[in-house]
Amino acid sequence: NNTFVRIRSNKLFEIFVVTVIIFSALLVGAKTYPMSSTMLLVTKFLDWFISGFFLTEVTIRFLAEHKKRDFFKSFWNVFDTVIVVVSLIPADDAELAVIARLVRVFRVLRMISIIPELRILLVSLVKALPQLGYVMLLMFIIFYIYAAIGSTLFAEINPDLWGHITISLLTLFRVMTFEDWTDVMYETMEVYPLSWVFYLTFIFFTAFAFLNMVIGIVVGVMEQ
Amino acid sequence: NNTFVRIRSNKLFEIFVVTVIIFSALLVGAKTYPMSSTMLLVTKFLDWFISGFFLTEVTIRFLAEHKKRDFFKSFWNVFDTVIVVVSLIPADDAELAVIARLVRVFRVLRMISIIPELRILLVSLVKALPQLGYVMLLMFIIFYIYAAIGSTLFAEINPDLWGHITISLLTLFRVMTFEDWTDVMYETMEVYPLSWVFYLTFIFFTAFAFLNMVIGIVVGVMEQ
Amino acid sequence: NNTFVRIRSNKLFEIFVVTVIIFSALLVGAKTYPMSSTMLLVTKFLDWFISGFFLTEVTIRFLAEHKKRDFFKSFWNVFDTVIVVVSLIPADDAELAVIARLVRVFRVLRMISIIPELRILLVSLVKALPQLGYVMLLMFIIFYIYAAIGSTLFAEINPDLWGHITISLLTLFRVMTFEDWTDVMYETMEVYPLSWVFYLTFIFFTAFAFLNMVIGIVVGVMEQ
Amino acid sequence: NNTFVRIRSNKLFEIFVVTVIIFSALLVGAKTYPMSSTMLLVTKFLDWFISGFFLTEVTIRFLAEHKKRDFFKSFWNVFDTVIVVVSLIPADDAELAVIARLVRVFRVLRMISIIPELRILLVSLVKALPQLGYVMLLMFIIFYIYAAIGSTLFAEINPDLWGHITISLLTLFRVMTFEDWTDVMYETMEVYPLSWVFYLTFIFFTAFAFLNMVIGIVVGVMEQ
Ligand code: NA
Ligand code: NA
Repeated sequence: NNTFVRIRSNKLFEIFVVTVIIFSALLVGAKTYPMSSTMLLVTKFLDWFISGFFLTEVTIRFLAEHKKRDFFKSFWNVFDTVIVVVSLIPADDAELAVIARLVRVFRVLRMISIIPELRILLVSLVKALPQLGYVMLLMFIIFYIYAAIGSTLFAEINPDLWGHITISLLTLFRVMTFEDWTDVMYETMEVYPLSWVFYLTFIFFTAFAFLNMVIGIVVGVMEQ
Repeated sequence: NNTFVRIRSNKLFEIFVVTVIIFSALLVGAKTYPMSSTMLLVTKFLDWFISGFFLTEVTIRFLAEHKKRDFFKSFWNVFDTVIVVVSLIPADDAELAVIARLVRVFRVLRMISIIPELRILLVSLVKALPQLGYVMLLMFIIFYIYAAIGSTLFAEINPDLWGHITISLLTLFRVMTFEDWTDVMYETMEVYPLSWVFYLTFIFFTAFAFLNMVIGIVVGVMEQ
Repeated sequence: NNTFVRIRSNKLFEIFVVTVIIFSALLVGAKTYPMSSTMLLVTKFLDWFISGFFLTEVTIRFLAEHKKRDFFKSFWNVFDTVIVVVSLIPADDAELAVIARLVRVFRVLRMISIIPELRILLVSLVKALPQLGYVMLLMFIIFYIYAAIGSTLFAEINPDLWGHITISLLTLFRVMTFEDWTDVMYETMEVYPLSWVFYLTFIFFTAFAFLNMVIGIVVGVMEQ
Repeated sequence: NNTFVRIRSNKLFEIFVVTVIIFSALLVGAKTYPMSSTMLLVTKFLDWFISGFFLTEVTIRFLAEHKKRDFFKSFWNVFDTVIVVVSLIPADDAELAVIARLVRVFRVLRMISIIPELRILLVSLVKALPQLGYVMLLMFIIFYIYAAIGSTLFAEINPDLWGHITISLLTLFRVMTFEDWTDVMYETMEVYPLSWVFYLTFIFFTAFAFLNMVIGIVVGVMEQ
């Protein structure tokens, strides 16, 4: 037990873990380039080495824990264990190969669990979310009402944009980001010349709600 | 009277009201998808059930009020009553069917009147508006002057964008959101090579006014 | 003299002046729509009435001033006088008609000089400008250097965008507003595959400078 | 030595230096326009004059320094010396002509080293960077994971956008700036109808991280 505690808190071990995580991230990137069959074999071996190393590392941290039950009380331990275990699942099948590759991508997330500053940052970001809850709900209500109106009036003009409420919500999000929103508007204005009112009020409402969300966060942070 | 007060403040009744509102919102969404005639009939009955339930609920709240006259002094009571009464208007006509459907959409707004936190949020948002009044007026003056210049100089280049002052205002709003604004500019630059001055000064003025509006809200909120 | 002072501070006179200004603004807008020859004549007479009224009004305010020399010490008096005098210049010539119409547009600006709150707002906006001076200069230096590099390397790829330094500055402003900037980038990447570095560093530098400008204003306002 | 100190602190000399820098900036701009061979010769001579003048100026400042070794301890002295020396390299070769011209562009940067306010501003901007370090790292991790997923799933749909991880990072940056991001999305939605989840979560994560970065700077500045 003591040996594991010593390894866990060893500075060299820590640096080595970070190095392997960065290396695994680079490997994920490298695999997106075309590779010779030799290279494919090498990346496969490297993959197994990383998986094995991560498993060993999590095991050491588990064994170093004084009370085993407490290990899984830490969110980040559970997080690491899940990522490590899931990426151990073998996938030689062509179908599963894509899924296996995607799973390995999430090993990059271990960067967050290993660097304390990133962990603190993420926790503080997530803590800022609940105070946004009601503005988000209000925004969703605005979106929902406009999407319902949009798919009622414009569905026949362009079913790809306004066919049903889900696709209308996506179209409205597009309008909110100002992405070619006038193309969407000019199209409906040919049938309903006054439909610019629909778009302009929507932009005003969402922009105003968004602004208040931002200000809410700023004021919330200031008060701390 | 006492019975109505007891129903109104009953926790289960409240939860049931919220459930029906959420359900009515989902129904609004469902109706945007293609439906079999059986389903159409089902939604029609559900519609009548919701309308009936909302009418009953508002009536209970009205009867529970000690002084009947005070009921309509609350903005949210008037708001609820109008939505409920308007969605009672029958519309079997094909023409009116669209309007009837649109009216039902606004029942989703009852989410705001039923959730106190949303009501408070909306009130605080609306209260922030008056202090924006003069910046909005200033912005409108900028828009108006540029729209007048634009429709005087560019109307013949592209009547769809600059034909008269209303459409010019819309085009300028588009330029302010940076939506394909260079396409608009390059077109007029072919006739007036210096017209980029028009667009750039407009962007600078409105961006500067908008920035001051945002800062105005932030400072206003901070002072509270 | 006393009579003029009494007229100037008369509440009804003030309201009448604001009404005429709003009316002159509406007239400017109306003239952008196609009009019958009768209407054209009517607008011409209205135009002369407004010009005459404005001249009378400024004259009254001038005569009401105790020391005539002080009248022109106020920026807003000079502003009003210039607008009124310039819009008196007759323009029956077809060529000059456009200029005459443009000059009349600026009468809308009198809204600012007549409403004290707008005047105060504008003064406070203008006062915020000098503290932006050095960030603006820094931004211009960034723009200038990138425009010089852009027109050196990309002029032959697309002379319309990068032909010389002036047009390059305009193209860079377009890139800063994210307006179809990837089209500009993909074009140069076909010749210089690494030219994304040019665009990305430019966006980072200007976004960072812009952010600091905004924060600078916020902090400046807060300190007051 | 005393003579050099006197020249360095001479007001007229300072003004002359600033004039030459502005003049060198204008020359850089002028060279992007087509020129007659006479003009080309003139600019060449002006170039040599500016180079010579800058060399003289830096030399005077070097000689005016009491302890020669301290001269290169100042970042801005090193900065000036490097720019001046590099732009002295002759380039008559057609190939090198472009490089020579690019090097001369950076002489505009001397505006920053000569104006103390710009120097202070830049130092304060650079000082704000480290506190952004971890948010930038978090953002890069988000980008990297999405780029890996994107190039795994979408590479065959559009290799120009998702071919490998580097180009996917560029595409994601484009999506973050909302530049025609729906075109990118609609294309992949034809194969994977649910791929809008990919884009929307990416936009939410990066927008949220970006917002926190901005708030981080604001709060950081406020605390000073
Ligand atoms: Na666009
Ligand atoms: Na855009």
